[in-house]
Amino acid sequence: MDLAPLLKELPPTIQTAIDKASLKEYGRDWTRYYEPNPSAIVFPKSTDDAQKIIQWARRHKIALVPSGGRTGLSGAAVAKNLEVVVSFEKMNRILSFDEVNQCVTVEPGVITEELQNFAKEKGLYFPVDFASRGSSQIGGNVATNAGGIKVIKYGLIRNWVTSLKVVTGSGDVLELNKSLVKNATGYDLRQLFIGSEGTLGLVTEVTLKLTQAPKPANLFLLGVANLDAVMKVFATFRKACDVTAFELFTEKALGHVLSAFSELNRPFETVAPVYLLVEVETVNDESVQTALSAFESGMNDGLILDGVVSQNETQSKNFWRFREDITEALSKYTPYKNDISVTIANVPEFMSEIDRVFQIEYPDLEIIWFGHIGDGNLHISILKPFDLEMPEFVKRCQKVDALLYSTIQKFGGSISAEHGVGLSKKPFLHFTRSSAEVQFMRQIKKIFDPDSILNPGKIFDLTPL
Amino acid sequence: MDLAPLLKELPPTIQTAIDKASLKEYGRDWTRYYEPNPSAIVFPKSTDDAQKIIQWARRHKIALVPSGGRTGLSGAAVAKNLEVVVSFEKMNRILSFDEVNQCVTVEPGVITEELQNFAKEKGLYFPVDFASRGSSQIGGNVATNAGGIKVIKYGLIRNWVTSLKVVTGSGDVLELNKSLVKNATGYDLRQLFIGSEGTLGLVTEVTLKLTQAPKPANLFLLGVANLDAVMKVFATFRKACDVTAFELFTEKALGHVLSAFSELNRPFETVAPVYLLVEVETVNDESVQTALSAFESGMNDGLILDGVVSQNETQSKNFWRFREDITEALSKYTPYKNDISVTIANVPEFMSEIDRVFQIEYPDLEIIWFGHIGDGNLHISILKPFDLEMPEFVKRCQKVDALLYSTIQKFGGSISAEHGVGLSKKPFLHFTRSSAEVQFMRQIKKIFDPDSILNPGKIFDLTPL
Repeated sequence: MDLAPLLKELPPTIQTAIDKASLKEYGRDWTRYYEPNPSAIVFPKSTDDAQKIIQWARRHKIALVPSGGRTGLSGAAVAKNLEVVVSFEKMNRILSFDEVNQCVTVEPGVITEELQNFAKEKGLYFPVDFASRGSSQIGGNVATNAGGIKVIKYGLIRNWVTSLKVVTGSGDVLELNKSLVKNATGYDLRQLFIGSEGTLGLVTEVTLKLTQAPKPANLFLLGVANLDAVMKVFATFRKACDVTAFELFTEKALGHVLSAFSELNRPFETVAPVYLLVEVETVNDESVQTALSAFESGMNDGLILDGVVSQNETQSKNFWRFREDITEALSKYTPYKNDISVTIANVPEFMSEIDRVFQIEYPDLEIIWFGHIGDGNLHISILKPFDLEMPEFVKRCQKVDALLYSTIQKFGGSISAEHGVGLSKKPFLHFTRSSAEVQFMRQIKKIFDPDSILNPGKIFDLTPL
Repeated sequence: MDLAPLLKELPPTIQTAIDKASLKEYGRDWTRYYEPNPSAIVFPKSTDDAQKIIQWARRHKIALVPSGGRTGLSGAAVAKNLEVVVSFEKMNRILSFDEVNQCVTVEPGVITEELQNFAKEKGLYFPVDFASRGSSQIGGNVATNAGGIKVIKYGLIRNWVTSLKVVTGSGDVLELNKSLVKNATGYDLRQLFIGSEGTLGLVTEVTLKLTQAPKPANLFLLGVANLDAVMKVFATFRKACDVTAFELFTEKALGHVLSAFSELNRPFETVAPVYLLVEVETVNDESVQTALSAFESGMNDGLILDGVVSQNETQSKNFWRFREDITEALSKYTPYKNDISVTIANVPEFMSEIDRVFQIEYPDLEIIWFGHIGDGNLHISILKPFDLEMPEFVKRCQKVDALLYSTIQKFGGSISAEHGVGLSKKPFLHFTRSSAEVQFMRQIKKIFDPDSILNPGKIFDLTPL
């Protein structure tokens, strides 16, 4: 199909691009297994533009791929089958701020970090935060129900979305919930769009609740003996303190960060198999004392091998780099990534079982564990040896995925905790969602997107294989 | 249709009742405008029972009305058309408690207050709380996405549901989300069932997150000059403090409480048009001081006419009674109730406009305002004069509803903040939800309940009028 004449049917306000560089750039996300191959990119500037694009796509049965900051890790924003990419980067305004409601309304292309900074300027806080904050966009955050490092205290972005304006695949413009705190008037359709990875509608406006600036906190960096110790340290801190972050990384992960960033030094001499970053609110002398006691009792019990508490902002930033710079430190190994979760109580048993599987299946590959362990969420990165070809490497990893996911299923866990399903997790969806659930999802998709123009082939296929 | 032989088809584990007293009792909720007229009551004891009931109802095209504590105020649990009531009162066990996850799994018939007490015993807190806590059931709380007095800090029950087990109207048993904190694997169907008022499925198990016990708090009871003052006091406290409750009631409401409960005395001599209950967390000397400063600055500015801060638990309980006993104090007037919301910023203008409407339309009727003003949520009770017949009274009230709801629509508000739609708000749903939204809801209903056996005629009719 020659798209050029069709693109001319779009209103002149809508910019388009069909040059090779743009097609390559806008056709992919942070996954690197797919060859981008869109047929065009369109740039709406308003809800009206978005609606026109939907109507046009329905008329010509053109598949659309909604696209934000393209930091996704499951291929949900990949266009590899001549789809038209709908980029929201020109809808990047902060539209309004309501001081009484402590709410901000933004277009979907606003960068996560910009919103965080805006909140800060207003003396408030937007608590959805993760390493890709500098590139990811709010629309994409909504599309995957973004989580990150503050979920343990503040929850996922779902908790912070008070309104959504969307254009459905049928072309209807819906204003969902209108920023109300309480609104018990039937099904909360807003919730369906959150986490739907662009398969039901185009999000064109988001209103987010902000919250009070975080309270003073202490940040501990702890070296611990083993997985059981991790959970015991977690239980100790959680019972006594307001835990705002509880992150894990291994010695192997730390090693990669230290060798990638020469300006960083080991936090303490003791080499531990596992490290924890534990942030707790310390609102008064009592809570400072409680946190220190939790730390000391962990040391006395031999659970914590060594540890430090941050003395200032700079030190805290460096502590966070040990955790947040892992992804960048590993990027030269083009790692194969898994992002899984189980309930917190199941973490140690689950990890031991997975470890056994990996030792058998990947004896020759390096595996790096890290994650938001306080949410039961683990990132597992398998590093590609430089001499192994990508297709062969991916094939090997996918073979082990099946074993990994069977174990997840046994523990009632999730094959994708916060990265979404997109393309890469689609074959494995049934390990977490039952066939009845997937069938209901298909039917919901058909209601909102009757011609299947929105991100077709993502999350699930419309007809079971 | 003679139901007796059909009831015999149900497994013997499922108790049934068809006596007149039961039919009357189980056929209604706290609304009093509808004549209960169910044909039977069935009492499942397990998910399996619930599934058998659904299959039986599909086979015979029997309409079912799911029923919890029947404290609803919109008629969602009313059976007036020979439906079979499905009462969950025999599914009232707390099934399990997971200390690491701080989660509790319960059957739907557990009373809200029992769960609150259970949490307390475990050193934790279940923050969904409201006046009918002693009778309402968790299943019903989920069905209406219950709110109450702690929403301003803790949110609605939606935020606390980590798993739902449901039997859909199609007879499928779904285990939704399995208590995971993070699970980005497609549409979050759990969210559809929360607030669906029993129209999509029978909830047979709920897992709820608990949280840490509340921090020390100060409770202020304030008399304020007018609505503008209310919002300014709100802004002052919210900016400076962690507000955990912000409730409003009028002098008229207070008068009814004082005359109904002779053991209660006026909190202070000053008679104010409006009173506020303001609860703020006071975790350290600084926050106590901040709260007192907010109070003092309100006094100095003339916004607060008079006020007291609770000195102990008993006094706090009495302060709360001024607010929570309003419903009971008014019950002898069989009030016509509205439960509406707008965004907080819109409250003063909205209330002034409504007040004008009421002065014109109800010059002879007494109207009592109270509500969760910090959430933009107002309860409006219109008292029935003793000499006015109920049907005539309801007719007059419903006439004014149309004016009230037009105003709500203009302000983008909700015609039902936390009471649901049920029967009584159904004719007015379009004032809050667009026709496209309602049409999507109808289609979703058809997916999960293809024979329309679940609470038919509640929230919306399947075919537009």
